[in-house]
Amino acid sequence: MIIIKTIKELKNIIRSNKKQGHSIGFVPTMGFLHEGHLSLIRAAKKENDLVVVSIFVNPTQFGVGEDFEAYPRDLDNDAKVSEAAGADVIFNPSINEMYPEKYQTYVEVLEITNKLCGLSRPTHFKGVTTVVNKLFNIVEPDRAYFGQKDAQQVAVLQKMVLDLNMNIDIIPCPIVREADGLAMSSRNTYLSPEQRNAALILSKSLFTAKDMINKGGREAAEIKETIIKMINSEPLAAIDYVEIVDALSLNDIPTLKGSILIALAVKIGKTRLIDNIRAEV
Amino acid sequence: MIIIKTIKELKNIIRSNKKQGHSIGFVPTMGFLHEGHLSLIRAAKKENDLVVVSIFVNPTQFGVGEDFEAYPRDLDNDAKVSEAAGADVIFNPSINEMYPEKYQTYVEVLEITNKLCGLSRPTHFKGVTTVVNKLFNIVEPDRAYFGQKDAQQVAVLQKMVLDLNMNIDIIPCPIVREADGLAMSSRNTYLSPEQRNAALILSKSLFTAKDMINKGGREAAEIKETIIKMINSEPLAAIDYVEIVDALSLNDIPTLKGSILIALAVKIGKTRLIDNIRAEV
Repeated sequence: MIIIKTIKELKNIIRSNKKQGHSIGFVPTMGFLHEGHLSLIRAAKKENDLVVVSIFVNPTQFGVGEDFEAYPRDLDNDAKVSEAAGADVIFNPSINEMYPEKYQTYVEVLEITNKLCGLSRPTHFKGVTTVVNKLFNIVEPDRAYFGQKDAQQVAVLQKMVLDLNMNIDIIPCPIVREADGLAMSSRNTYLSPEQRNAALILSKSLFTAKDMINKGGREAAEIKETIIKMINSEPLAAIDYVEIVDALSLNDIPTLKGSILIALAVKIGKTRLIDNIRAEV
Repeated sequence: MIIIKTIKELKNIIRSNKKQGHSIGFVPTMGFLHEGHLSLIRAAKKENDLVVVSIFVNPTQFGVGEDFEAYPRDLDNDAKVSEAAGADVIFNPSINEMYPEKYQTYVEVLEITNKLCGLSRPTHFKGVTTVVNKLFNIVEPDRAYFGQKDAQQVAVLQKMVLDLNMNIDIIPCPIVREADGLAMSSRNTYLSPEQRNAALILSKSLFTAKDMINKGGREAAEIKETIIKMINSEPLAAIDYVEIVDALSLNDIPTLKGSILIALAVKIGKTRLIDNIRAEV
């Protein structure tokens, strides 16, 4: 496995692989890799000849006052675990390599970003679509792998690829959870032991919602109320949003039908966590 | 030569050409082709195995009250002259093929679009970068050819390709002029014989400016004043802008040095015409 720092070097590697007819799988990350990321790398390894993992804490997707500086970083460990999971190339550019002086081009998906996380993080998805668009042009992958934990991110990127006619398959992969249900996230490292315990209310409330659906519950308002009550019963938790939406359009649905996404964002102390479940009704 | 209407069909043709190692040259147009466009097709033919010409009057680059409906169209003649100039494929999609229902993704270059034509046409370049980004993803050209008449368009697209790390060479080609100096443009068809004659003031004033530079003139203000006086002496002409800028950044320069662009936009009746000259100082 090799670690590449410049776009030019990586493009040379990509070009030579393309010439040999190799398929390319791509896993874009912000590093500090956990089992969730590694499941993406393993999925990419199964389906592609070359696996590229990018590790780049992208400043344009953090809002003012968010945790860009604090976001955890550990390139040495990331390299070790990526290689074990099957990565061939790690792309770890500097901020200046990705956004040189006088950088001024942005890619924006409009409607689908104006809900859920987009409401409390209004500039977030513009940063995501811009950096992923750049990375797609650099890596030219056949397939790109994203975790379903960031469900809106997956929907937004699928819409970008569709609208801009990009030649890439977005492959969403299941959420990976700790044994007790907490969805894996690099931001879990921010939590004290007490907060870590309180954070379980996210997955617990979602599992309860899933039970309600399995038992025939179809009223979004009723399911939402149950989730909100459970989370509000946890003193350390403060709800940002709880939404039940169509999994593709992310539009609200009063009565559950088709592919459903139940998504929530909750602050535990200063740490904003997200989680979700899918259901087919 | 074949005429293709759908993205899917064109992508199949592109994929098969890529597999055979063919290079692809691309000439994006809004149709109603004149010698300016044909010079781009001929340049593409010289340097590439496959030449694709798109003909699409792109609604997103026209502002409210502009001439989207009136813009001249003649696919039969376009096909005939394209083929003679060396085009292999014409891509002529419908509006719905390019912007289906629920379309919501846009590509935007910021600073460089906020001057010259961008001031009087504030949504124009966002439409241009969006459609060209889409077309680049569909055609995957090695080289794309644009006329220098739309000098700001060339600069904006070069910036988009640079910023988004796209794997495409933008090739600017010289302005093609009528025998009397008028820069060729599909919009020249809007002009009455009297207006057509008045429109000569654009190129005449630019040629005068070029003479001043050749004779050692270096003061932008002085050259600009000469151009403005000449155009104002033509009763049918109303200046939108006359600017002397750095050819790459499009920033104003008081004293001429390096690569210079003298660009202007002038209304002749209801028809807005643009023209420019380059100078190396």
